Amino acid sequence: MRVGVYKIPMNDPADVSALRGLIEAGEVDPRLIVASIGKTEGNGGANDFTRALATLSFSRLLGDYLDLRPEEVQERVAFVWSGGCEGVISPHATFFTRDDSVTGTPTAGGGLALSVQRTRAFLPEEVGRMPEVQEVASATRRALAELEIVDPRDVHYVQVKGPLLTPARIRDAERRGATVVTTDPNRSKAYARGATALGVALALGEVQADQVSDATIANDLNLFTSVASTSAGGELVSCEVLVFANSPRSSSPFRIGHALLRDAVDAAGVRSALQSAGLSFADVPSAEQRGRIAAIFAKAEAPPGGQLRGWRTTMLSDADINYERHARAAVGAVIASVTGDPAIFVSGGTEHQGPPGQAPIAAIVATE
Amino acid sequence: MRVGVYKIPMNDPADVSALRGLIEAGEVDPRLIVASIGKTEGNGGANDFTRALATLSFSRLLGDYLDLRPEEVQERVAFVWSGGCEGVISPHATFFTRDDSVTGTPTAGGGLALSVQRTRAFLPEEVGRMPEVQEVASATRRALAELEIVDPRDVHYVQVKGPLLTPARIRDAERRGATVVTTDPNRSKAYARGATALGVALALGEVQADQVSDATIANDLNLFTSVASTSAGGELVSCEVLVFANSPRSSSPFRIGHALLRDAVDAAGVRSALQSAGLSFADVPSAEQRGRIAAIFAKAEAPPGGQLRGWRTTMLSDADINYERHARAAVGAVIASVTGDPAIFVSGGTEHQGPPGQAPIAAIVATE
Amino acid sequence: MRVGVYKIPMNDPADVSALRGLIEAGEVDPRLIVASIGKTEGNGGANDFTRALATLSFSRLLGDYLDLRPEEVQERVAFVWSGGCEGVISPHATFFTRDDSVTGTPTAGGGLALSVQRTRAFLPEEVGRMPEVQEVASATRRALAELEIVDPRDVHYVQVKGPLLTPARIRDAERRGATVVTTDPNRSKAYARGATALGVALALGEVQADQVSDATIANDLNLFTSVASTSAGGELVSCEVLVFANSPRSSSPFRIGHALLRDAVDAAGVRSALQSAGLSFADVPSAEQRGRIAAIFAKAEAPPGGQLRGWRTTMLSDADINYERHARAAVGAVIASVTGDPAIFVSGGTEHQGPPGQAPIAAIVATE
Amino acid sequence: MRVGVYKIPMNDPADVSALRGLIEAGEVDPRLIVASIGKTEGNGGANDFTRALATLSFSRLLGDYLDLRPEEVQERVAFVWSGGCEGVISPHATFFTRDDSVTGTPTAGGGLALSVQRTRAFLPEEVGRMPEVQEVASATRRALAELEIVDPRDVHYVQVKGPLLTPARIRDAERRGATVVTTDPNRSKAYARGATALGVALALGEVQADQVSDATIANDLNLFTSVASTSAGGELVSCEVLVFANSPRSSSPFRIGHALLRDAVDAAGVRSALQSAGLSFADVPSAEQRGRIAAIFAKAEAPPGGQLRGWRTTMLSDADINYERHARAAVGAVIASVTGDPAIFVSGGTEHQGPPGQAPIAAIVATE
Repeated sequence: MRVGVYKIPMNDPADVSALRGLIEAGEVDPRLIVASIGKTEGNGGANDFTRALATLSFSRLLGDYLDLRPEEVQERVAFVWSGGCEGVISPHATFFTRDDSVTGTPTAGGGLALSVQRTRAFLPEEVGRMPEVQEVASATRRALAELEIVDPRDVHYVQVKGPLLTPARIRDAERRGATVVTTDPNRSKAYARGATALGVALALGEVQADQVSDATIANDLNLFTSVASTSAGGELVSCEVLVFANSPRSSSPFRIGHALLRDAVDAAGVRSALQSAGLSFADVPSAEQRGRIAAIFAKAEAPPGGQLRGWRTTMLSDADINYERHARAAVGAVIASVTGDPAIFVSGGTEHQGPPGQAPIAAIVATE
Repeated sequence: MRVGVYKIPMNDPADVSALRGLIEAGEVDPRLIVASIGKTEGNGGANDFTRALATLSFSRLLGDYLDLRPEEVQERVAFVWSGGCEGVISPHATFFTRDDSVTGTPTAGGGLALSVQRTRAFLPEEVGRMPEVQEVASATRRALAELEIVDPRDVHYVQVKGPLLTPARIRDAERRGATVVTTDPNRSKAYARGATALGVALALGEVQADQVSDATIANDLNLFTSVASTSAGGELVSCEVLVFANSPRSSSPFRIGHALLRDAVDAAGVRSALQSAGLSFADVPSAEQRGRIAAIFAKAEAPPGGQLRGWRTTMLSDADINYERHARAAVGAVIASVTGDPAIFVSGGTEHQGPPGQAPIAAIVATE
Repeated sequence: MRVGVYKIPMNDPADVSALRGLIEAGEVDPRLIVASIGKTEGNGGANDFTRALATLSFSRLLGDYLDLRPEEVQERVAFVWSGGCEGVISPHATFFTRDDSVTGTPTAGGGLALSVQRTRAFLPEEVGRMPEVQEVASATRRALAELEIVDPRDVHYVQVKGPLLTPARIRDAERRGATVVTTDPNRSKAYARGATALGVALALGEVQADQVSDATIANDLNLFTSVASTSAGGELVSCEVLVFANSPRSSSPFRIGHALLRDAVDAAGVRSALQSAGLSFADVPSAEQRGRIAAIFAKAEAPPGGQLRGWRTTMLSDADINYERHARAAVGAVIASVTGDPAIFVSGGTEHQGPPGQAPIAAIVATE
Repeated sequence: MRVGVYKIPMNDPADVSALRGLIEAGEVDPRLIVASIGKTEGNGGANDFTRALATLSFSRLLGDYLDLRPEEVQERVAFVWSGGCEGVISPHATFFTRDDSVTGTPTAGGGLALSVQRTRAFLPEEVGRMPEVQEVASATRRALAELEIVDPRDVHYVQVKGPLLTPARIRDAERRGATVVTTDPNRSKAYARGATALGVALALGEVQADQVSDATIANDLNLFTSVASTSAGGELVSCEVLVFANSPRSSSPFRIGHALLRDAVDAAGVRSALQSAGLSFADVPSAEQRGRIAAIFAKAEAPPGGQLRGWRTTMLSDADINYERHARAAVGAVIASVTGDPAIFVSGGTEHQGPPGQAPIAAIVATE
């Protein structure tokens, strides 16, 4: 297996010109694209439609090459977008190709491997509850099997994108006499992100089956995975699970690593992720090493109680700018200050993703 | 001369409890306070009234100790506030005392010295023009003389706070048949900040008298000072000039240094400022060194054309959040990631303050 | 009793010049001022400090005339501010004087009367619960007695301002082992506004004692008062209750009336309030009648489910602008389109203030 | 000619289900659709991508019926969107069909007629200048000729959508040595809207040819049209001109009328527009009359100097919410308070569209 990593700039959420350029130049084979992860310049909230525009635009482009309708492309390619380019974060997308026909020399120590899995569709009353935990765990296990991963420590990043409860879905459940985990659509995001994160944790052995129940989801935050980044959107009914690992089967010229960000200004955590992915440096990566960083994926969160290293931040009391926007601005700038590159994936909401107040960060680095 | 530096947290813009605590504990003598520089949690725009509330609250507190009305305190103490605590920036104030009665052993290499000067009041038609340049230059020269500074390289930070053109002041000029530099109050901020920065540059020999004219202000940005941070507010008619230097006359247990931030994620620039102030480290300051950092003052700016290290940022096209807020969020987080402390003074608007696209940063560090 | 009504413009939250002008001109006797109700130009959220600045500024002004400290003025005068001047709403304050020495001819049908009452201080665990309901009911009854009101239908507007749960107060309760109604400060506003509204409803006989319990507060919204407007702020520990009625004891040259706004664009409701206060017109008030409108006080609310007259509004899904701001913008503009005057008091949050989805509006009109 | 008017709700900017329903039910023939005018729920600023998403979504839908690519549909149908659903404004679109094969009895007094015209593409240096004025005037004259309008007073609404100057187009001009009207993209909107409005004014005889020059555009605001609503967007290089009139050739069951809004709370102006379109009522339209209102199109603007009927509004000094958003919230609510329907088209920017400080409003009403 060989996984390709292509980070492209976007001039607006509908700008597919950079990917078209790579395809036209023969650098990217559109038939091999399996997923993308990117940032769009919306507000990141419930009324952020830049994600939908980007998905539609890229699936139209690929549909032209593959002779498929956009909706068919979306069944084949997992598009993951996070809205909100606060601070220096640059709108961009990282496209992933996977070529199973390549059977070259495996990368020493294992090369980057990627498996994309989907769960079955969920009923509204299953969202944010144990059925979602179990199905995500199964999907993650399928990915591990497909990638022939035996040691879960070879998994460094699992991106999960799943459903939340929309007003329409809540009404559907109520019509059938079923009860949902919450009737507040915004609050359902926490349960949905939490359940899918616990599913990953279960599959990777980070928590045990008897520790997890409906009551622990979005509640007992001492249960967590250190490698998952999960999001919830109104457009989905099933979950898409992207498992990134270093696999002995892979001949990709990339490796992936991860670390935890202790808080929103933890430059040392950023450096740890780069080192985990294979860059050797003491305090500051060299220019050559910076050039080998292919992609960074991080979560951002307001500090507990709004207190950062003993000082009050205003994230949680600001009625003009949502706290996730403040947190992404900070984390994005700190990462860019280490890597020298503001095209970073930073998204918000960390339930069961790292210890309370901390957040996972993954880095993909070229092996040479 | 001995200058004291006291950084205090603020729970809201009217919260003076931390300074009251220091005074009651005998740590700060209210009679010696000459200036404060701080951040308040407003939006930093024309309708940010948190600065006014903070000034009124602190001048009431000091007035109670000094038996003065708040307005009288404001003639005696220079209160400098920047609104906008984006990202991790913590609302706080740094108070400066100056005790001329102390004649102890001078600090080796010069200790922190501070002179606060005021210009005459300006007519509206003088704001953002040569009279303001000249008067700020004179005030800066008076400060140098008072501090017995002979080498301008001993000056590391000059904070200037001056008037802008309000609708009322523009009407006043028009009534008298005088023309102002611009009839747009928001645009006048650039001229006002630029003129006062050029005044500092003139006094410090960074530009020559024959290079500066009305036509160069906020226009020829290749003329600049590397140590000034200037702001403009509607409440002022004269300028307050705070000159911070290392002086052989001073026995303060602090030194000041400065550097330039190349862009909004320039962690190396932050490190340079700390090194300039006397901390010796290779890449990352130690915990002990971090503990000696007393205060940081920086300017933040959107990158030219919005392009940061080859990638597009969205600061300049965002209709929801002003670009200064994005820039402050980024710069504040990057500084905190180096110093470990989010109570940082970061303000926006860099006309003639550093080369185009760059911004000055100053650091005060305890000598032991 | 004679009540005076003085509506003044404010150029900023600290601008007291218009009131000073009225006092200096002898039109307002500062010793007779008992309350003010006004709008300030903040965001209306938890980080809106314009209310605090306005209170401090006006209490300083009055303190100068009354030889009192600002804090002492605030014990004597009830300052009610609502932040958020969305759309056309103009920052302003309406000051109320009360002169009990006037014993002139009573106004026909009763003139405007005002009683300001205060409750005892509440423990955090009492906020939003029955003790607060009972104490506000008692305070309202004291006001009715003082004004010699026998028919509750003569009461047209009761403004209540009370405490909410701040993080500090929640911690205080937890330290003592007491449980609070909610540990979410923002959510506590709904309980606090609801409890005080039910207290007014109880005193005016709009609900019966056996209908109200902790379980009904902010929950059974079919219990309500049609004349109260309640707010909750972090700076208070007791409630201030302002009861406005038409009283046969009053010789004020004003009358007050009220109505309900069916939704955010109910111009007919605005007209009803004016007619209730004594203006006789069919559909549109005349210019002379408009000139007699002294003040308008209204509540604004997002429509249930965001649906207004069968069409979707975006108030509840907007992550950039809070729904209360959208609602105030709409209600303020509709009122101004009827009265011709954008200096209107419109505030958000209508728990138990009118039937679900509706909101009270009161009008004070000069009798000639 | 018969023009159909179909106003549909949108659950999000990509929601085409209501139009699909009308087509599937046989009520709308997709081949007859010539234009749509609607509101989307973005912020209305440079980073509002909801307009692009709506255009792409509807042109995909129509393309499926017409067997055309979305880009081809966009050449055939004029899609006009204004972003920003502030206050009560409901996201919606009004689709217009035109059937030239209908030769029924002409509507008494003339029925609603619509002509859609396009200009040639403009070079960047032509935008906001006389060539754009002249070409829009020619396009408007072509529409008048096509509709056989002899009396310009039969024209009640001209919607023009044209290009603005993007950074890319400015660079293109500079590369060729050409100078543009302004190098500030945001400022170019005023010139572009002004030039196209003056083009309409010229064609309708509201201004004379010798009164208009480059120097008057966006400058001499005493030159204006009373019926045009113009907008400028970065995605266009030519202008689309939609001329709405009452024509004796038309057998449409609708009539159109217009009026001027004196300011943002001018309910009388709204009533005048309805009366101009044929509704007879004194002060308030009846429920039956309200039911006949098919669509409303209005412009919104901040009052000159921010002063509304002698009181200060905060629109122009608000750094959190753009003044156009405040103005649209107010105007939308006032219109809905008269018509009872929040699905209104209100857009910002009124250069040369009505006298200074005023704004045009048009109404389409069913004749029975």
